[in-house]
Amino acid sequence: MQEPMSGSRMEDLELFYEEVKRYQSRPLWVSRTDPQPKAVPYLWKYQDFRPLLFRAAEIVPMEMAERRVLIFSNPGLLGRGPATSTLSANLQIINPGEVAPSHRHTASALRLIVEGDSAYTAVEGEKTYMEPGDFITTPNWLWHDHGNEGDRPMVWLDGLDSTLVNALDATFREEYPEESQPLTKPTEVSQRLYAAGSLRPTWVDRSRLHSPLINYKFAQAYDALSTLARESEGSPFDGICLEYSNPQTGGPAMASMACYASLFPAGMHTQAHRHTGGVVYHVITGSGYSVINGVRFDWTAKDTFVVPSWAFHEHVATEESVVFWYTDTPVLEPLGLYREEPYEENGGHQRVTGNFAPIPA
Amino acid sequence: MQEPMSGSRMEDLELFYEEVKRYQSRPLWVSRTDPQPKAVPYLWKYQDFRPLLFRAAEIVPMEMAERRVLIFSNPGLLGRGPATSTLSANLQIINPGEVAPSHRHTASALRLIVEGDSAYTAVEGEKTYMEPGDFITTPNWLWHDHGNEGDRPMVWLDGLDSTLVNALDATFREEYPEESQPLTKPTEVSQRLYAAGSLRPTWVDRSRLHSPLINYKFAQAYDALSTLARESEGSPFDGICLEYSNPQTGGPAMASMACYASLFPAGMHTQAHRHTGGVVYHVITGSGYSVINGVRFDWTAKDTFVVPSWAFHEHVATEESVVFWYTDTPVLEPLGLYREEPYEENGGHQRVTGNFAPIPA
Amino acid sequence: MQEPMSGSRMEDLELFYEEVKRYQSRPLWVSRTDPQPKAVPYLWKYQDFRPLLFRAAEIVPMEMAERRVLIFSNPGLLGRGPATSTLSANLQIINPGEVAPSHRHTASALRLIVEGDSAYTAVEGEKTYMEPGDFITTPNWLWHDHGNEGDRPMVWLDGLDSTLVNALDATFREEYPEESQPLTKPTEVSQRLYAAGSLRPTWVDRSRLHSPLINYKFAQAYDALSTLARESEGSPFDGICLEYSNPQTGGPAMASMACYASLFPAGMHTQAHRHTGGVVYHVITGSGYSVINGVRFDWTAKDTFVVPSWAFHEHVATEESVVFWYTDTPVLEPLGLYREEPYEENGGHQRVTGNFAPIPA
Amino acid sequence: MQEPMSGSRMEDLELFYEEVKRYQSRPLWVSRTDPQPKAVPYLWKYQDFRPLLFRAAEIVPMEMAERRVLIFSNPGLLGRGPATSTLSANLQIINPGEVAPSHRHTASALRLIVEGDSAYTAVEGEKTYMEPGDFITTPNWLWHDHGNEGDRPMVWLDGLDSTLVNALDATFREEYPEESQPLTKPTEVSQRLYAAGSLRPTWVDRSRLHSPLINYKFAQAYDALSTLARESEGSPFDGICLEYSNPQTGGPAMASMACYASLFPAGMHTQAHRHTGGVVYHVITGSGYSVINGVRFDWTAKDTFVVPSWAFHEHVATEESVVFWYTDTPVLEPLGLYREEPYEENGGHQRVTGNFAPIPA
Repeated sequence: MQEPMSGSRMEDLELFYEEVKRYQSRPLWVSRTDPQPKAVPYLWKYQDFRPLLFRAAEIVPMEMAERRVLIFSNPGLLGRGPATSTLSANLQIINPGEVAPSHRHTASALRLIVEGDSAYTAVEGEKTYMEPGDFITTPNWLWHDHGNEGDRPMVWLDGLDSTLVNALDATFREEYPEESQPLTKPTEVSQRLYAAGSLRPTWVDRSRLHSPLINYKFAQAYDALSTLARESEGSPFDGICLEYSNPQTGGPAMASMACYASLFPAGMHTQAHRHTGGVVYHVITGSGYSVINGVRFDWTAKDTFVVPSWAFHEHVATEESVVFWYTDTPVLEPLGLYREEPYEENGGHQRVTGNFAPIPA
Repeated sequence: MQEPMSGSRMEDLELFYEEVKRYQSRPLWVSRTDPQPKAVPYLWKYQDFRPLLFRAAEIVPMEMAERRVLIFSNPGLLGRGPATSTLSANLQIINPGEVAPSHRHTASALRLIVEGDSAYTAVEGEKTYMEPGDFITTPNWLWHDHGNEGDRPMVWLDGLDSTLVNALDATFREEYPEESQPLTKPTEVSQRLYAAGSLRPTWVDRSRLHSPLINYKFAQAYDALSTLARESEGSPFDGICLEYSNPQTGGPAMASMACYASLFPAGMHTQAHRHTGGVVYHVITGSGYSVINGVRFDWTAKDTFVVPSWAFHEHVATEESVVFWYTDTPVLEPLGLYREEPYEENGGHQRVTGNFAPIPA
Repeated sequence: MQEPMSGSRMEDLELFYEEVKRYQSRPLWVSRTDPQPKAVPYLWKYQDFRPLLFRAAEIVPMEMAERRVLIFSNPGLLGRGPATSTLSANLQIINPGEVAPSHRHTASALRLIVEGDSAYTAVEGEKTYMEPGDFITTPNWLWHDHGNEGDRPMVWLDGLDSTLVNALDATFREEYPEESQPLTKPTEVSQRLYAAGSLRPTWVDRSRLHSPLINYKFAQAYDALSTLARESEGSPFDGICLEYSNPQTGGPAMASMACYASLFPAGMHTQAHRHTGGVVYHVITGSGYSVINGVRFDWTAKDTFVVPSWAFHEHVATEESVVFWYTDTPVLEPLGLYREEPYEENGGHQRVTGNFAPIPA
Repeated sequence: MQEPMSGSRMEDLELFYEEVKRYQSRPLWVSRTDPQPKAVPYLWKYQDFRPLLFRAAEIVPMEMAERRVLIFSNPGLLGRGPATSTLSANLQIINPGEVAPSHRHTASALRLIVEGDSAYTAVEGEKTYMEPGDFITTPNWLWHDHGNEGDRPMVWLDGLDSTLVNALDATFREEYPEESQPLTKPTEVSQRLYAAGSLRPTWVDRSRLHSPLINYKFAQAYDALSTLARESEGSPFDGICLEYSNPQTGGPAMASMACYASLFPAGMHTQAHRHTGGVVYHVITGSGYSVINGVRFDWTAKDTFVVPSWAFHEHVATEESVVFWYTDTPVLEPLGLYREEPYEENGGHQRVTGNFAPIPA
C-alpha cells in the first residue's frame, strides 16, 4: 500500500470497506487504533474538596444521600471514568441523622474514613462504628447500609471495582425489601472473632473470597506499623507496609482489590519501581511527596492520588506518614498479567523533571 | 430536588458543578449514567465472509498479512468493539508462501482452523501443522509466528482476550529480533508429550497458567465426542461437551479463556440457561439453530455467533453438529462474579419471538 | 478349607509355607492378623507427675537436660509408644540456668507451658519468653533451643509428630555446630509482625507450611475466647473454640498438627461426636470431665488426656475451663481419610458406663 | 551420670522408674531406642513366585480366592511387614470362573497385570478388562470387585497403602450387601471419557482426590513412552518417565501413591539420587539392573524390587525395559518431608560393592 493508488483501485477499496461494514465487521488493516484514553498520574487535594463536600451536604437532599458523592475522575480517561482504569475513588459525605437504605451489588466496595465519628456501616447483619483511618469492607453481593448517629457529617473515601465489574458484564444490584437489613449479629462481632487474626473461630463457615472482617481499625494498624518501624526497614518500595489480609486465607481483603497501609518514617525515601495494575493512594496522616514518572506530587493528610499501571513511583516522607492504598493486582496475577520491575538507574531514584500542576477542566 | 428550583438556586448549582469540574471531579448525583453500550446476540455467516476474505487476500499485500483480518464487531458495542464485551473473534486469511514475523503479547490468542491445510503455527520453538477444526493455543507472552507452506489460502478464526487485557492496562507486545524464532523443539512434540493426557512427562517443567499443548487436533476431539455420544446424554445445556483442558491442572486451556467442543446429535434440543460471561460459538460441522433471549439464530458450518453475558440460550441440531466455543468465565470465577441459572418455565425452552435478522450498518 | 484335612495334605501345606517363607514372602490366607495394638482413651494427672518431675530435676544431670522428659505412653500401645497412634505428649522440666543446645529435626514439635516463667525458646534466630498457657511452635527443620533464665524450674508439655515422621521413614536430625544459634532477629518479633493477624507484613517471605508465629500467647487467646463466650455458643462439639492458625494461609499452625484452644463455660455440656485422627487434650485452667466411648474421665487443670481415632467424646465443664488440644487430622484430610460423625442417640449424649481408672503397669 | 553410683542411689532410681511406670509413663533419658526395624532394598524374582502362585491356585479354595495372595515381606521389617515401610506389594492369582465379592476400604489399591487375560475389575459400577502391563486403580472407599471370565489364571501385582492407613488409625472396610455391585456404567467408559486426557467431559462431577480413570492401558503408555524416547532424553534419574496422572488435576493417580512408567532404552544408565519415600518397582518388560546403596540388583521382566526411603539408586538397561513404579511421596510433600539429592561423586554413579543375594528366611 506504499504506492499511490489509482482512482479505480481506491473506489474498489471503498466499496469493499462498505461491504464489510454491512456485515457488522471491520478490516483490521485500516483500523486506526485511536490513542486509547489512559489513566494518568493525578492528585486530588482534600483542601479543595472539603468545602465542596460540605456544600453538597446542604444542597443534595437526604433522599439522594446515597448519591452525595464526588467522583475523582481521572483526566486521562476524558473526565468520564473513575480514578484509575479499573478502580473508583470517590468522596462521600453523610449528614447527621441520615440512614442509607440497604442494598447489595456485585461490585466490591471499601470505605476509608476521612473525618467524623458516630456513623456506622452494617454488613450482613453486623454493625460497626467507624473512626478516621478505619478501613471498612463491603464485599461483592453482601447486604450493606449505613447511618450517621452523631451530630456532625462524616466523610469517607469510597473505593470500588465497579468499572472492572462493568467491563466483565457482571453488574447486578438489588435493593433490600425494607429500609434496613435486620441486625442478626452482635455489633462488631467480626472484630472480636478475627481481631486476634491467627486465632480462627472453628464454628464459623464463610466464603473465602473476601475477608470476614468488616472493619480493620486504624488504631490497631497504626500500632502494628509503629512497632514494626522501630526494628525493621520494611520493603524498599513500600516502606513499613502491612497488607489488610483475609485471616481465613492470608490472601487479599477482597477478591479484586488488595489493600495496604504503609508507614513511611520521617525522612524515608523509597526506591522507585513500576508494576502493572493501577493504585489509589490516600494519605491518612503526615506529609511528603511521591515521584511518579518523573513528576513530583506533594501530598498531605487526607489527599488522594493515583499511580496508573506501569508508571514508576517512589515516596518521600517529610514527616512520619501513613498511607492507605488499594490496587487491582489480585485480578492480574491469576491471568499471568502481573509484572513488576525496579528502577535500576541513579540508585533507584528517578530524576525529577517537574511538579504536579492540576489540569484545568 | 423534586420542587421547582428558584433561578438563583439553579445558578448556584451551576457554579458548584463548574467548580467541581475544575478539580477533575464530577458529582455522582447528576451523573446521567448513559446507557452503556452492551454486546448483543449476533451471528456472522461464513458465506458472507468467504468472498470478502478471498478478496482481501488479493488487495492486502504480504507485508500487511499479519493484519489481513476481518473483525467481528458486535453491533451493540457501536461497531467499535470486539465480538463480546471482552473477547475478540476475527477471521484471518493467509496466502500460500506467506510467513508472519515472530512476536509475543500479553493478550492470549487461540486459532480455530476454518479451511485450508499445510499452514503451521510455531509457539516457543515448536511447530505444529493445522487442519480444519484444530484448536491452536498461543498463550500470553509466548513467541509465536505462522506460515503457509501449501498452495491455497488458509482461513482461521482468531480468538483473543485483548479487550480485557487492555481494560486491565496490561498490554505489552514485542517483536522477535529476527523474522522467525528458532525451532528448538521437534515438530508437534507437545502433542506427543500430552496427547495421552493422563500420562504426564515428569521431566518437563512449564507454567501452569496455560496448557502446554499447542494443538488440540480436531480428529482426536471428534473421536472422543462421537464415542461419548453413543452412551451418554452429556450436559442438559451443552450437549456432549468436552473442555479442552490443561493436562497439567485439569483447568482451562488458557488462564482467561475456557474452550469447549460440543457435539449435538441430530435432533438434540438442549435446555436453556444463562450465565455471566460472554461466549463466542463457531460451528465446525453440521447445522441447526440457537434461541438466544427468545430470538432464533439459524446456523450452519463455519458460521460464528455470540451469546452475551446473562442471555438465555439453547441449541437445536437439525443434523449432527460440532460447535467450538470459548468464554471468559475463568476470569469471573475467582472474583465471585460467575453466576448461572436455568430457564425454569415451559420445560426449559424459551418461546421463540422472532428470527435473527442482520442489522444493517 | 472347612473340611478336615488329611495328614499328607497338611504336610504339603507346611512344605509350601516353608517354601514361600524362603523367598521373603508370606501367604495372606494364613495371616492371623494379630489384634493390632491400638491407642486407648487415657488420662495422666498432673498431681501424679509434678513430684516425679521435680525429682527428675534433681537426679537427671544438666548434661542430659534435653532428655529430662517423661513420656505419656499409651497403655494400648504396649507401653512402648507415644500418647496416640501418631502423636507424642511428654512433660519436660528445665532447671534454672540450664541451656539446651541448638538442634533441628524433621519432626515438628510444640510446647504448651504448664508452670514456671523466665524461660525462653529460640527458633530460627528469634527468642521468645514463655508463660503458662503459651503455645510455642518449633516446626519441621527449624533450628531451636531453649534456656531457663529464672530461678525456678519450668515445666511444659511437649507435643511431637515424631512417630508419624518415623513411620514415613523421613526422620532427620542435626546438631547446631555451636551451642546456640545466633539471635539474628529482635526478641519476639514474630508476635509483633503477626500479632494483629489480619495485618500481613509484605516484605517477609517464609514457608507457608507452618505458621511464622512462634509464640501464641495465652493472654491473647484467653481474651479472644472470653469475649466470644459472651455472645456466641460456639461449636456444639468443641465449645468456644479457636484454631491457632497460620496467618499466612488460614491453615493449621503446623503442617501435621492442627492446634486449638476450647473454652467451656461453667456448666457447658457439649454434644458427642467421633472422627478419625487421635487428639491430645491438655487442661490449661478449670475442671470438668469428658465422656469417651462411654467412660467418664474427670480432669482438672494441668491434666492431659487422649481421645483415640474414632472414639466418641463429649465434654462437661464444672467450672469455666480452657483446654488446649492438638490432632493429626491435617494429615488425614488430603488423603481422603478424615471422617466424622455425631452421636445421634439420646440427645447426642453417651450413656456413662463407667469411670476412668488408671491401668496398673 | 558418668560417676559410678552408690548402691542406695541406684535403688532410689529403680524405685523412681517403677513409680513412673505405674503412671503409664516412661523416662526419655533411659529409653534405649531399640534399633527400629527398617525396610531394606530387596528383590523378588517372578521365576520363584510363579510356581508358588500356581500351586496356591490349586490349594486355596475359591471361597478364599480374595485372600490367595503372596505378600512381599521386606526382611528389614522382620518378615511381618509389607514391601516398604508404608506400601504393600503382593502377588495375587485368580482362577478362571472366580468372582470376588464387592467390597470397599479406606486403603487405596492398585493392580499391575502380570499375566493372563479376560479378567475384569469393576469399580463404582464400571467394568474394565485387564491385560498385562495395564495399571488399574481401586481408590479409597470405592466399591470394587473382579472376576476371571477367561480359561486360564490371571496374576497381578497388588499395591496398597494399607500400612500407612493403619498407622493413621483410619482403616475402614465394608462388604457390599450383594455379591456384586450393579454395573451402572458402560464398560470401560472412563477410558473413553478420559482417554484423550486433555479433553475433559464437562458434565461429570467426581472427587478430585483420585483419578477418574480406572484403567491406564499399557498399550497407550508404551506408545507414548516409545514416541518420546525417539526425541527426548527424559529425566537423568528416571529415564523416559511418564506419571500416570489424574486428568482432573494433573496430580497423582491416587492421593497417597504416585505411579509412574519409566522406559529405559537399551544401554541407558541413569544418574544415582536418593529421596525420602519408599518405592516399589515392577519390571513390565526388558532386563537390566539397579544399583541401590552400592549393591547391584539384577532384574528381568515381571520381577519386583524395592528402594527404601533415602537409599541411593540408579538403573541400567541391558535391553529396552519398561518399569512400573509407585511411591508414597505425595504423602510426604504437603508435610514438608520430601527431600531429594543427587549422588555427586564419581560422575553420578555409585561404586558397586556387591551383588544382591536373597536373604534366607
